[in-house]
Formats: sequence, C-alpha cells, structure tokens
Amino acid sequence: MRILVVNPNTTTSMTGTIAAAARAAAGPESDIIAVTSKMGPVSIEGYYDEALAVPGLLKEIAQGERSGANVAVIACFDDTGLDAARAMAAIPVVGICEAALAMAALVAQRISVVTTMERALVPIEALVRRYGMAERTRVRAADIPVLALEDPTSGAEERLSAEIARAIAEDRAEAIVLGCAGMANLAVNYRQRFKLPVIEGVGAAVKQAEALVALGLSTSKRGAYASPVAKAYAGALQDFAPIGRGDS
Amino acid sequence: MRILVVNPNTTTSMTGTIAAAARAAAGPESDIIAVTSKMGPVSIEGYYDEALAVPGLLKEIAQGERSGANVAVIACFDDTGLDAARAMAAIPVVGICEAALAMAALVAQRISVVTTMERALVPIEALVRRYGMAERTRVRAADIPVLALEDPTSGAEERLSAEIARAIAEDRAEAIVLGCAGMANLAVNYRQRFKLPVIEGVGAAVKQAEALVALGLSTSKRGAYASPVAKAYAGALQDFAPIGRGDS
Amino acid sequence: MRILVVNPNTTTSMTGTIAAAARAAAGPESDIIAVTSKMGPVSIEGYYDEALAVPGLLKEIAQGERSGANVAVIACFDDTGLDAARAMAAIPVVGICEAALAMAALVAQRISVVTTMERALVPIEALVRRYGMAERTRVRAADIPVLALEDPTSGAEERLSAEIARAIAEDRAEAIVLGCAGMANLAVNYRQRFKLPVIEGVGAAVKQAEALVALGLSTSKRGAYASPVAKAYAGALQDFAPIGRGDS
Amino acid sequence: MRILVVNPNTTTSMTGTIAAAARAAAGPESDIIAVTSKMGPVSIEGYYDEALAVPGLLKEIAQGERSGANVAVIACFDDTGLDAARAMAAIPVVGICEAALAMAALVAQRISVVTTMERALVPIEALVRRYGMAERTRVRAADIPVLALEDPTSGAEERLSAEIARAIAEDRAEAIVLGCAGMANLAVNYRQRFKLPVIEGVGAAVKQAEALVALGLSTSKRGAYASPVAKAYAGALQDFAPIGRGDS
Amino acid sequence: MRILVVNPNTTTSMTGTIAAAARAAAGPESDIIAVTSKMGPVSIEGYYDEALAVPGLLKEIAQGERSGANVAVIACFDDTGLDAARAMAAIPVVGICEAALAMAALVAQRISVVTTMERALVPIEALVRRYGMAERTRVRAADIPVLALEDPTSGAEERLSAEIARAIAEDRAEAIVLGCAGMANLAVNYRQRFKLPVIEGVGAAVKQAEALVALGLSTSKRGAYASPVAKAYAGALQDFAPIGRGDS
Amino acid sequence: MRILVVNPNTTTSMTGTIAAAARAAAGPESDIIAVTSKMGPVSIEGYYDEALAVPGLLKEIAQGERSGANVAVIACFDDTGLDAARAMAAIPVVGICEAALAMAALVAQRISVVTTMERALVPIEALVRRYGMAERTRVRAADIPVLALEDPTSGAEERLSAEIARAIAEDRAEAIVLGCAGMANLAVNYRQRFKLPVIEGVGAAVKQAEALVALGLSTSKRGAYASPVAKAYAGALQDFAPIGRGDS
Repeated sequence: MRILVVNPNTTTSMTGTIAAAARAAAGPESDIIAVTSKMGPVSIEGYYDEALAVPGLLKEIAQGERSGANVAVIACFDDTGLDAARAMAAIPVVGICEAALAMAALVAQRISVVTTMERALVPIEALVRRYGMAERTRVRAADIPVLALEDPTSGAEERLSAEIARAIAEDRAEAIVLGCAGMANLAVNYRQRFKLPVIEGVGAAVKQAEALVALGLSTSKRGAYASPVAKAYAGALQDFAPIGRGDS
Repeated sequence: MRILVVNPNTTTSMTGTIAAAARAAAGPESDIIAVTSKMGPVSIEGYYDEALAVPGLLKEIAQGERSGANVAVIACFDDTGLDAARAMAAIPVVGICEAALAMAALVAQRISVVTTMERALVPIEALVRRYGMAERTRVRAADIPVLALEDPTSGAEERLSAEIARAIAEDRAEAIVLGCAGMANLAVNYRQRFKLPVIEGVGAAVKQAEALVALGLSTSKRGAYASPVAKAYAGALQDFAPIGRGDS
Repeated sequence: MRILVVNPNTTTSMTGTIAAAARAAAGPESDIIAVTSKMGPVSIEGYYDEALAVPGLLKEIAQGERSGANVAVIACFDDTGLDAARAMAAIPVVGICEAALAMAALVAQRISVVTTMERALVPIEALVRRYGMAERTRVRAADIPVLALEDPTSGAEERLSAEIARAIAEDRAEAIVLGCAGMANLAVNYRQRFKLPVIEGVGAAVKQAEALVALGLSTSKRGAYASPVAKAYAGALQDFAPIGRGDS
Repeated sequence: MRILVVNPNTTTSMTGTIAAAARAAAGPESDIIAVTSKMGPVSIEGYYDEALAVPGLLKEIAQGERSGANVAVIACFDDTGLDAARAMAAIPVVGICEAALAMAALVAQRISVVTTMERALVPIEALVRRYGMAERTRVRAADIPVLALEDPTSGAEERLSAEIARAIAEDRAEAIVLGCAGMANLAVNYRQRFKLPVIEGVGAAVKQAEALVALGLSTSKRGAYASPVAKAYAGALQDFAPIGRGDS
Repeated sequence: MRILVVNPNTTTSMTGTIAAAARAAAGPESDIIAVTSKMGPVSIEGYYDEALAVPGLLKEIAQGERSGANVAVIACFDDTGLDAARAMAAIPVVGICEAALAMAALVAQRISVVTTMERALVPIEALVRRYGMAERTRVRAADIPVLALEDPTSGAEERLSAEIARAIAEDRAEAIVLGCAGMANLAVNYRQRFKLPVIEGVGAAVKQAEALVALGLSTSKRGAYASPVAKAYAGALQDFAPIGRGDS
Repeated sequence: MRILVVNPNTTTSMTGTIAAAARAAAGPESDIIAVTSKMGPVSIEGYYDEALAVPGLLKEIAQGERSGANVAVIACFDDTGLDAARAMAAIPVVGICEAALAMAALVAQRISVVTTMERALVPIEALVRRYGMAERTRVRAADIPVLALEDPTSGAEERLSAEIARAIAEDRAEAIVLGCAGMANLAVNYRQRFKLPVIEGVGAAVKQAEALVALGLSTSKRGAYASPVAKAYAGALQDFAPIGRGDS
C-alpha cells in the first residue's frame, strides 16, 4: 500500500524527520512516499501560515492520488487543509492531530498536548474540541518557534521536556501528545524518560491510514465531503478548478 | 469611515447584490468599498472552494488595508478565511455569519439558518457551534446552487421561501438567518411575508464593522491573532510572505 | 433615532457615568435618553437586588417606549430583566453584558470579564454560558462594592487594574470586558495601558441598539418573547398588568 | 417541621390544588403552610409575568421565615425567583422544577416535560440546562392556558394527556414530568394510565424540603447566595431593602 | 418503609459507619436494613474493584427485594452497579453520589467533591458529568486509602480536612460533598468547622429513597431499565440468570 | 503479534463470526486468538447482562495476557468492562465501539450507529458521548434480539437494512456504524448496497490493536488506570483478588 505523507510547509529537513517517523511506524507492506509542499510558508505558525499552506498541500495530495497513493497523511499538527483535502480526494486523508488524539484516547483518560508557540494554542484547542476530546485534554505551549526543532543547538528539546514535566505535575496528565510534526523523532525518548505514553502524530496517522486502507474505507462522498462541483477558478489558482466527479 | 466589503468568490454580479445590501445598511458617515476577489472559485460551495478562496480574499483585504480601509467585511456565509484575515490585518475583520448570528441573538431565542446546498450544512453547523449558538440554532439547506440565486428564473427564491416556512413550522424558529451572501437582497421581503425577524449577514456585518470602528476596537494581537511571523513563502504564493509586525 | 438607556439602580451619579459612555459611543443621528430607575435598590449586587430592580426597570422601558424611544439599553452588567423587557416591549432591548461579549467575540478568542464583587461571579458565568461564550471566557471579581466605583478615593480603580493584570498573566486573555456599568468610563484608559482591547458594555450596547434600528429589526413575538397575555395583577404591582397585544 | 409552600401567582384556587398535592406527599411530622402571593399576576405565563411575580413571592417567603417556617417551596414550574429567595432567606428554598427533575433522574434516563403554553418552552429548556438534564430531557407544550387547568370543562386534561402520549411515542420518554404547579393533582391518574413514572413538582419539592431539614442543610452563604448587602431601596419597593446579615 | 442499604465492599466495619449515617438520616417510619456484600473486594478503589463488586451487590439487592425492601441504596460513592441494579430490581435504587450531588445542588452553586485516592478522580468526574453537574463541580482527592478511614490513627481525617480547606480557598466552593461512603460520619463535624454545607451521600440517599417510596415512584421499565430478558448464564455466575419479568 | 479477541458473551457461534471478521482485518504478522467467555450471559442485552459479563471477560483477558497476548480486543459494542480491563492488564485493551467510532470519524462528519434492541440505545448514547462523538452521531435500534443475528431465518438482516435506509434518509448519515459484534459479517455487503462507509467494530478494533502494538503504546498506569491495589476479595470471586503491581 502506498501512503502519501505530505509536509505542508516547504522545509525539506522537516520532511526528513517526518519521513523517518512514518517509516518507523509503517507496516511491512506499506510504502511511505514523503513529499514537501512547493508552495507556501517554510513553517506553519498560526492561522495565516496555515491558510496559505493549503493550496500547496492540496496540490501534493492531488498529484499523489494521480500517482497511485492509496491514502494521504497531512503532517502538520493543525490538521491543515484536512476538510478540503477530504472533499477533493477519492482516497482517504488522515491528519496527525486527529490520529494522535485517537491513539491517546485508547491508552489514557487525561491527556496533555505540548505544542510549540502560544499562538498555536487556540487553533489546537479548537481541534481538540472538534475531535471530542476537550473534556479530557489540556493544550500547552513550550514557546518554541517551529524551526527551532530542526536546530539541535536551539534548546528546544529542553524547553519541551520542561513543559512535559509541568503537564504531568499540574494537569494530572496520563499521556502526552507531541503537538508538532517536527517533534516526531522525540516520542520514544520522552516515553522512556517520563514513564508514560508519549504519542507523536506522524506514526499515529500512518497506522490509521493503514487501517483505513486495510478495511477498504474511504471518505464518504455524501454530505460534507461531497466532491467539489465543477466550476471555473480565476487567477493564479485557476488550475485548482474542480472538474467534478458527480458523486452527489 | 471606509468599510471594505470583500466578496471572496469571483462573481461580480454577486458583488453587486452584496454592495447594495451593504450600502442599504451603512450609516451616513460610512463609505462602502465593495470588491470582488480576483483569484479562486466563482462560487463557494463546500470545503474545497472555501480553502481555495482564501488567498484571493486575503489579497483584497491586505490591499484594502493599505488603501485606507478602517475595517473589512468578508461577504461569504462560511466566514471564509476569517481567522487568517484577523491575524494578517491590523484593521478589524467581520464575517457575515458571525454578524448575522450576533444580531439574531438580540431579537430571538430560537433561530433557523436557511442556506443553499446540503454540503454547506456541516460547515455552517460548525460555525454555529463556534459562535456559541448551537443550543438554539438549526441549520437547513434549501438545495439551491449558489449562483442560482443570481438567476431570477431558477426558482431559487421559491425553494428558499418554502424552506423558511418549514423552519417556522418544524423548528419553533423565532427568527430566520439567510445563510448565503447571495441572499442579501431577500431579507426585507421575507420579513414582511413571514412576520418575524429575517436577518441577512451583509447588513449585519456592516453594522458590526461600524460599531468596532466607532468604539476604537481592533483585533487583539495577543495570542491567537498575533501578527504572522516574518518568513519566506515559496512558489506561486511567495508574495504572501509576511514581513512581520513584531507585535507579539 | 431615540435610544433609551436605563440605569436599573436608583443611583443618579451612576446614570451620569452611563450617559457619558453612551453619548461617546452614539452616532450623529442618535439621541441618548438616559434615565434612572425610581424603584428598587441603589446598586445591584447579587440575585436579590437584581430581582427587585426589575419592576422599576420595566416601568422606565414601558414609559420610554410610549414616549417614542426606538430601542432600549439596560445598563447593568447582569442584564437585569432583559427577558421580561423583551417580552413586554415592541421596541428591541439590548443588555450591556450580551453586547460587550458580542463585541469582544469579534476581536479576540479568549476573553476575561472583570467585575466587582465575588457574589456576581456565578450570575455572570451563567450569562456567559447563555450567550455561548463559556468555552473562551473567564470571569473574575476585583472585590469592589459597586458604588465604590463612584468614589475616586475608594481605591477601586487600582484593584480593578490589578485584576486586569492578573487576567492577562493567568488567563491568556486577549481582550478584557469590564463587568459593571459603573466602569464605563475606564475602558479607554485601560486599553492604552494594557495594549489590548478593553470593552465596556454601555457603548457596545448603544452600537448594537443602533444596528438593530438601522436594520429594522425588533424582538420576535413568536415563542419565548410573545407579548404578555392580558390579565389581572394584584397588589402594589397592579399597574403592571398587561393589556395584551394579541401578537401570538 | 413547618414547610412553607408559596403559590407565586395570586389565584387562590390553584393554591388549593398545590396545597393538596403538598399534603399528600408530606411526612407525618411535616406541617404544610400553603400561601398565595398577594402581589403580581393571576397566572405566570412567560418572562414578564414571572418577573413581576417575584416581589410578591419574596414577601411571602420573608414573612414565612419570620413566622417559623423551616424551609420554603416555590410552587411554579419556572422556579420563579428561586435564586433571589435563596440569597434572601436563611432557610433553604426548593423549586418545583428542580425537584421534579431531580426525582425523575432517579427513576429514568430519558424524560419528557409536558407544560402548558408554547412561550414556556424556552424558559423551561433553560432550567433543564441549568439543572444539567438537557442531554436527556425534552420539553413539550400542550397549548393550554395555565388557568384552564382550574376549569374542568376546558378540555385541558385531554390535551395534556394527548401530549403525554406523543412524548412516549416520539421522544422515547421513560418518565413524564408535569410542567406546571396547576397539574399537581393529575400525576397519579396519568401514572396509572400510561404505566410509567409521572412526576409532579409540588410533591417532589416537599420531599426535597423535608430531606434538607432532616439533614440540617441550608443554603450556603458563601459566594452566589451571600445575604444581600444592607442598602436603601426606593419607591414602591422600599420595604424590600435588605438590612444585612453580615454573613459574607 | 424498609430501606435496604448495601455496602458493596466486604468490610463489615464500614457497614457500621454507613448504617449509623443511614439511621441518623432516616425518618421515624423508615427501617434501615444495612447489609455487607459477601462477594468481592474489601474496598473499592478504582475500576477493577468496582467491576468485581457488582455481582455481590446485585445479589444483596435481589435478596433484599425478595425479603420485602421497598427501596435500595448503594453505599459506595462510585455508584457501583447502579444501572444494573435499576434494570434488575422492581424497587427503586439510589446511589450515594447522585443523591449527594442532588442535595448539594439545592443549597449551593459551586461544589467541591473531596474523595480518597487519585485514581478515583476520573470515575467520579464521569459521574459528575453524567449527573449534569460538571459545570459547577470540582473533584479532588485527599490521597487516602479507603480503609484508612476506618483507622483513627491513620491521619486520614487531617488530610481530608486539609483538602476541604484547599477546596474552599481555591475552588470558590460553596458546599462540600464527601466522596466516599466511609466518610459518612464526618459531615456534621466538618460542617461546623468550615461553616458551609457539607453533604455525605448515605444520609442524602436515604432521604431520596424515602421520597421515592412516599411518592410511589419506581424505576421506569421502559427503555434503558427494561427488566433483563430471560436467558442462560454460564459458569460461576449461572445463578444470576434472569428469569424475565416481561415488562417490555 | 498476538491479538486476543474476547467475545464476552458465552455463545460460541458468535465468537465464530467475530473471529472471521478479526482475521479478515488482521495484518500478515498478526495472530488472532479468539476466545469465548465461560462465565456469564449468552448474549449481552442491557445493563444487567453487561455487568455480569465482566468477570468472565476479565478472566479471559488475564489468562490471555499470561499466555503472551500483546493486546486485547473486547468484542461487544457496549465496550463491556473496558475500564476494568485497562486497569487490570499491562497490555493495551481496545473496545469495538470506540474503535468503530474512531474509524468512522476519519471518513465522515455525520454518523449513524444502528444497533439491536431499544434498551441498548441509552448505554450506546452514553459511550458516544464519552468518546466525544455526540454532536455528530445518532444511535438507532432495529429492534432485533442479539442472537437473532446468528439465525439466518430471523429476518434480522432485513430489519437492519431497513434501519440503515432510514438513517440515511432521516439523519443525513454520511457513514454507518454497525452497533453489535454479531453484525461483523455484514459490513461489506451493506457498504456495497448503500454506497457509503459501513464500519463494524471488530475489524476496526483489530487495526487499532495492531497500531498500538506497532507504536509501542500501552495503557498509562498513571491516574485512572493505575494497577489495582493488592487486597483480599471474598466469596465466589476471591480468585480475582489483585496481587498488586506497584506501578503507582
């Protein structure tokens, strides 16, 4: 099975971290195709970056689908563009935030998400609510710029681990979710150090993607995710105009 | 005061409807500047169109702000790109869905939103929840393509009015909110016909925009709407790269 | 347009503060008629005062409506008697708590309300929930008797400003709402001092009142706000007996 | 133990119905003192009547407390003036809506409340939410004026029983709560007829009142229900001015 | 009236504490039959103990019902086996957590539950949510093993009282609920010491049980609590096989 | 990897259906060990059966864990005994209701669960709420006894498929979840017939189980799922007494 993993920011080194985590989680019959968006921000920090990352992301998913991918993973913890991707694609699409929370829900009652910047708190809290986890999840920021995670000298790892320690002490956290794709390489280390489940979303999403394909499930085309209606698009985005699948 | 009203789809005739509603609502000291997005879908029907409408919308708001607008209104009932626009702009930004619901909340306890296509139901229900109105609001679709509202021979108006009648009979609706910017010209007529408040979002948003400016309020730059961090953007969207305001 | 602003406590000096804030916010075509209740408590601090303030408030609104007011504002942050006033009057009625929260929702995601006494916390929290803002709003008390706000030597302003500072530090507040009509004169000062939106309800309600009148909206007479049925009232309140409008 | 049962409307015949239900439920050591408000509406139908019934109700409770009542019951399904009464009195106060829902919760998972007029739906739904029962309770109106319950020729009983039948068929109701004090005499009959628990609030409140007294519990004077602060009241309501208990 | 009070753990001394609290609360016509489960854990601390306590509990209730009990009380704050008992029995069944919360709701707006071990927090929070009290209740653990409550030298009482003090200081608690049947003897003492309502569940449940019997109410056999269908049970639990009542 | 799949009722033929679905979903490296409880009801229909099925279920999981299982699946849609099993076992445990809902959430916004008997509705609605899916899920019963699913002549399949058709027509369902382990063989057929995702829980749970093992995740032993404290158990269940792991 071909699993497309899209890094929706344009930083190739982060795609490396993501691809490694995806491959570590993937089953023997899965082929991970990790791609980097070619259009949009170098990192996604807040609503503005997120919105502008969507066209590049959709382009990668559309192309991946045409090239035979069976399922797509969006490797940004904001689950950037997830709804648009689900409406667009015939293959199923998984976000790393929803996948990480779904896995965490199976091993713990109270969960703390530790993310990067303070401005990410409200958007992630909205996702937590959307995914039905608000009553048992707290979101925290370690005050780290996203790309600092790519720089071993930035001190990011220490700040992150101090924030995890606070989550355990103050939130009654039973499990930790790492709230950024760029943290995908840190889960195993923190799990051993803090002696509780630490979940990162890329591996979690790869397993959910495999599950969907194995069970023959894809996005429903009734209702919210009906295929886009064929229509004209203007300007720089005119190539995104949907041609219509007529499913609903 | 200069109020920028952006139609985030690229259909100029709908901008006409919107501009008329905006002007009808505007106070004597308000100057309505109605613009049409130049980039993206001709109509916004579902998540995919919505995501691809955002860059064009943001461009219009950025340009309007540079040209001296004091406040911006996003004239699509999905409140397309609202969070990104708020983060980007220094001037306040108002969505027509949030404005219509806020006005409806002042005159009724139970509200029915009547929108166009079935695929719009889930996204609007999510907005209703976000704006804290879920306990008292029901969303209905009249099964009308958005652009049919621009065509007097389409029968759209009859379907819409039949759906309003159903909302009153079945939902205990005390007020009706029209769930599409393209319906902005119909509120007065329906109000007289059905003898209850009928609210359309464009006029509502213009009044909220005037209120914000009059009170000297703009988007908080602490937390969720902190100005975008300066960074590089790649590809066709590279001109959207934020230069940084350093507010937070 | 004639906007009736009722101070539902009987303290005339507070009506002065309220009237000044109302006039500062009002548009050029609005005429502010500020009145003081003649019946009930000198200040509203808790459920008991609130209940006993309602008859006097309703009397002022009824009289204001007869004298040609187009809309009424209730200038107490408990939104005292709002539902009864809406049922009674044909003109629309706006509460300052609901108006302040509605404005705050347009400029911030996380909001802290700072009010006077601890006993006001639960009633205001109930309003915050009713208005759909509970997920993003925290209510705090600065431990100030209401009338201390009228006394410059009381130290009230310092306590209030210390509480705002705590809200910013501890609640991730992006905007502050001042939770008492008697604080209406302080918003501009705090906004400059704390560099974030500070909203007081009187001005906010005046703008919502203007919006309703401009849009031709009034309270729905279907359902919850149907006009009172004609019936006899006994005792000291017999003059309040409704004569019936027969609207529903 | 002396249990004060206040009918907050001024219709003596309804007090008779209420007193009979209270006595039928009371234990051997309870003395039911049923009183009729002397000030306000002959029936409570909607927000306006409700607000104007409060002063008369508070007067009866204050007087009952002075005369040695150990606990008070407010016999109107809107739980009219409950919070004000709790703040005012040292003795505990029970509303019939809250008591009926509390009893229903002990014998059924899904509950339907059947009340009188449509305008009562929203206020009762708000109480249902406040008491934490919204997820499992539906409120219905049988379209009966309150005083029709006092008139055996009005057909009210038949409409009510038809509405109960619909609740069982359409709501999966496991228990029925009668949503008006004037229905207190009908519970036993409906219970036998429909073979499921039918709860009326007056008897339920009497049992809760007895429970509070037996357990030595009264309203907490910390926080929301702190005794009213001593202060002047003006006009026709000046005798209501609190003298202050100094409890908080 | 015969009130069966079941201690679902097998520790007889705790049954003594429970029986004393039940008798102290019972009315003059109530006969308290306190029994100890003969099957299962010596104390209930967490989900595992709770699940294994249920068969022994059900056996006692079934036997009590056959011996003429009119109502049953489950004297464990987890409301262990409450739903199964309600489905099984024709007599009504009351849990001490639900009863304590119902009583607390009548005397306070904000409530803190103080329980024993940290592992009890999540289960009790789930009950608080189920009973509709989540918005106004906080649950705290004093870090006491259940049976330490039976040992006067354990220091349990001091830890408990320190936790109550923290609840008052930090939670704005207006009333305290003691979150373990083994604390039933402590309520009066803490009430005097902390000057606010302190509710223990055994007495509260006895009063609710009396109320149900007095009002002629029992568990609805429609829907969720329909009597078990007759069927075979295998193994050590085969005697639990229901014979069927055919009520639904 | 060894995946223990426990049928918590004692009907071996249903274990056959369950095992087949588990094997159809399992990856090439998974070994499905399907076992039938030896203690408790032949089918689980309502709260009473559910409670009495738990000891037999826990016994199978404990034994499976000792025999080297890496993860356990509980194959009853009530997620019978899930919390107790998680507290007891060191290996992770997955319920089929939670797994089915988690998969459905990845492919649809609005979901209808179709289960067997009406008495199952409230318990499943409680699970739906617990798993955070209440806002987008409706639960329906097709009025089928559980074991009728094992009998091809019972007409169960027709009733089920009629109920699915109603769910699609009336609930705006975008995906269907089959609400009983005994329906595990029907998903593929219904998916083809109704052209939308149809999810059954056994396969879904097997994939979640594989995911947990692959990612090295197991139940957190902090907080709610801390290992049972060592203590004595009395009577027929004495062998269930925990010996203590000392993890928390």
